Amino acid sequence: MSYIYFDQAASSFPKPDKVGQAVLEAINEYGANPGRGGHSLAVRANDVIFTARKKIAAMFGERNPANVCFYLNATQALNQAIQGIPFDEGDHVISTNFEHNSVRRPLEMLKETKGIVTSYIQSDGNGNEILELLENEISDRTKAIVVSHGSNVTGTILPIKEFGKIASERNLLFVVDASQTAGVLPIDIKEMNIDLLAFPGHKGLMGPQGTGVLIIRDHVDLLPLIYGGTGSHSEEIGQPLKRPERYESGTLNTPGIAGLLAGVEEINSVGLDHIYEHEVKLTTYCLDKLTQIDGIRILGPGAGIPRLAVISFTIEGMDVHEAAMILDQHYQIGVRSGLHCSPLAHSLMGTGEVGAIRVSFGLYNTIEEIDRFIEAVKEIKSFF
Amino acid sequence: MSYIYFDQAASSFPKPDKVGQAVLEAINEYGANPGRGGHSLAVRANDVIFTARKKIAAMFGERNPANVCFYLNATQALNQAIQGIPFDEGDHVISTNFEHNSVRRPLEMLKETKGIVTSYIQSDGNGNEILELLENEISDRTKAIVVSHGSNVTGTILPIKEFGKIASERNLLFVVDASQTAGVLPIDIKEMNIDLLAFPGHKGLMGPQGTGVLIIRDHVDLLPLIYGGTGSHSEEIGQPLKRPERYESGTLNTPGIAGLLAGVEEINSVGLDHIYEHEVKLTTYCLDKLTQIDGIRILGPGAGIPRLAVISFTIEGMDVHEAAMILDQHYQIGVRSGLHCSPLAHSLMGTGEVGAIRVSFGLYNTIEEIDRFIEAVKEIKSFF
Repeated sequence: MSYIYFDQAASSFPKPDKVGQAVLEAINEYGANPGRGGHSLAVRANDVIFTARKKIAAMFGERNPANVCFYLNATQALNQAIQGIPFDEGDHVISTNFEHNSVRRPLEMLKETKGIVTSYIQSDGNGNEILELLENEISDRTKAIVVSHGSNVTGTILPIKEFGKIASERNLLFVVDASQTAGVLPIDIKEMNIDLLAFPGHKGLMGPQGTGVLIIRDHVDLLPLIYGGTGSHSEEIGQPLKRPERYESGTLNTPGIAGLLAGVEEINSVGLDHIYEHEVKLTTYCLDKLTQIDGIRILGPGAGIPRLAVISFTIEGMDVHEAAMILDQHYQIGVRSGLHCSPLAHSLMGTGEVGAIRVSFGLYNTIEEIDRFIEAVKEIKSFF
Repeated sequence: MSYIYFDQAASSFPKPDKVGQAVLEAINEYGANPGRGGHSLAVRANDVIFTARKKIAAMFGERNPANVCFYLNATQALNQAIQGIPFDEGDHVISTNFEHNSVRRPLEMLKETKGIVTSYIQSDGNGNEILELLENEISDRTKAIVVSHGSNVTGTILPIKEFGKIASERNLLFVVDASQTAGVLPIDIKEMNIDLLAFPGHKGLMGPQGTGVLIIRDHVDLLPLIYGGTGSHSEEIGQPLKRPERYESGTLNTPGIAGLLAGVEEINSVGLDHIYEHEVKLTTYCLDKLTQIDGIRILGPGAGIPRLAVISFTIEGMDVHEAAMILDQHYQIGVRSGLHCSPLAHSLMGTGEVGAIRVSFGLYNTIEEIDRFIEAVKEIKSFF
C-alpha cells in the first residue's frame, strides 16, 4: 500500500523530478560560490541564481530581479521583513488571528524590545467584517499591516487586495505572508499594493527545503538582519546599499535555488489556474465526504466559500495526536495534528487547547487518495 | 583540458558522490517537514537531522547534539552568535585584523546600535606577539573575544587554544569562526575553551551550500536572532527555551543537512590527519614553485610556518582581476581575485587597494594541477 502524503501545507511532496535533478546538477557540476569569484563555475552558479530571481520576480509582478532576496525559509524572510522595518517606540502594527508564529513571534519580540504596539484582528475572515475591523484599528501611530494571505489552519483566504488598498490609502507598509498561497493563488504585488512579500520555496512553488524568498519593493528600505560577506563592496565597513547584497550576506543555497527555479518553471508550465482548480476539486470533495460522517467537526469556512486545500477537523471523543498516529501507522496516511504553529487561529476555533487534525492537498494528490482517507476516518470512528 | 578548481576556500568542489546522492534521496524519498508532524516521512527527515547533529557534535567535542544548530551559512551562524550575546552599552569586544566581514560587520553594526566598543588586534599572527597584544587589550569592560581560526586570505592559523585559555582565565566569552578550518584541523570546543563555534557546511566539511552550523555550549544563553515557528511549544508567545528549537525557527534545509551528514561521514572516514597532510603537501609544493618565479609577491606566513591551503599573491605590474580572468578563460583554472570579504587582512598585507589572487586547495586537488597552474603563471608573466 503506497503512502499517502496529506501534509502539503508543511512542505510539498513529492517534487517534480526535475527539481531533484537541478539540485544534483548544481552540486556535481557547478558547486562554486556564486558572486564570490569571476571564474567559470562561479559565473554559472550566479547565472542560475539570477534566472531564479528573474522568474520569481515575473511571477509576482515585481519588475526588478535584484529585489528578490533568498533566505533559508519563509520564517527568515518574514523576520527580515518585520525586524527590518525601522520602528520607533509606540509605532503600531496591525495583524490578524490567522498568523503563523513566524509573524506573531517577531511582532511580540519587537513589542518587548522596541516598544511597538500590536493589534490582532479577531475575525473568521469571511465577508467584509474583517475589513471594517481593520479600518477601525488604524490610528495615527499605525505604521504597518502584516497579514497572512491564507491560513495554514482553516484554509481561510484573506482579502489581501482589499487590505492592500486600505494600506495604500492610509500610507501604511503592507507585509504579506504568502506561505500557503505562493504557487497556488495569483499574487501581483503592484496591483495588490504589497510592499513586502514573503514565501517559502518548498511549499506551493515545489522547490526543495532550504529556500525562502522576500520581495522588497524599490521604495522600501529595511535594516539588514544579517551582516557579513557580500562578495562585492568588501571594503565597506557596513552592509553595501546595493541589492540584493544588502539583504543577503553569506553564501547562498545555490543547489536549493536551482531546484526552486525548476519548481517555478514547473508551476509556470502547469499554470496556477489548473493547480488551484485541482486543489478546489479535492478540497470540495473531501469536505463533502467528511461532513457526512457523524462526530466530525470541521474548522474554517463553510461549504461554498473559497478556501485553500487545507482542512482541519476534530473527531468527537478522540485525541487528535492519537488519530494522526493511527492514520500514519495503520493506514499509511500522513497528516498533521496539533496547533500548526498558529495558536491564535486555534483559539478562535475553540481548539486552542487540543489542536486539530489537518489534511492538506497538492497538485499530485488524487480523489482516490481522499477516498482511502475517508474510509480510514470512518473505520477509526467505529473501531477506536 | 579539464577545469582546475582552486577556489576551495569559497566552497569545496567537487563533493564526494554520496553528498549529492544523500541530497537527492532526501528530496525524492522523504521530503516532509522534520519536526513538523509525527508521520513517517517527517520522522525519517527528523532522524537524519538528529544523526547529523550527533556526528557534528562528536566531531567537535560537544556532548549534547541539541546544542548543534543549523543555519543557511556560517554568516548566519556568526550573526546568531554575535548579535545573540546580550551586550550592554560600553561592553568591549576584541577581534583581529584577520576577520572576514561576517565577523567584522556584525560587530561594527553593534557598535552603532548598542554602543559596544571594538578592538581589532593588528598582528601577522605569528609567534607569541598576538597573545601579548590580546592580553594588553583586555579590560574590565571586555566581554567577548571573537576570532577566526584561520585566515581566508593569508592562510595564517591563529593559536585559538591559547586564545581560549586566556578567555577562560579572564572569564570572557570565546567565539570562534572556523570557516576555513572545520573539516581540516582538529577542533575540540572543551579543550579549547570555545563557547560558540561557527562554521559552514559547504567548505571543509564537504556538504552542499545552504548549510552553516553554530555550536552553542550549554552554559551560553543567547538572544534568538530569528523568531517563528518551532514545530513544538506552539502555544508560547515567545521562542521556547528548548534547544535547538530556540535558535532554529522555520523549516530546516533537510536535503542540505542530509548532504552535510554524508560529507561529515566522508571526512571521518578519510581522517582529518590525512586531509591536512595532503593540503600541506600541495601548499608547500605550490609555495616553493611560486617563490621561484620573479615578480611574484606572496602574502602570509613564510616557508616552514604551518598554514592553511590558501595562498594569496600578486604578480608585479599586473592587475589581479585580469590575471584571474586569463587563468580562467585561457588556462581553465578557477582562482579568486579581490579582497575576499576580508579588507583588514589585505590592509595589513599592503594589498588593501588592489587585493590579490588567491588559490586554495582541497582534498581532491593534485600536484599535477599545481604544475599546470605554475606553468600558466610563468606564461602569463612572460606574455602579458
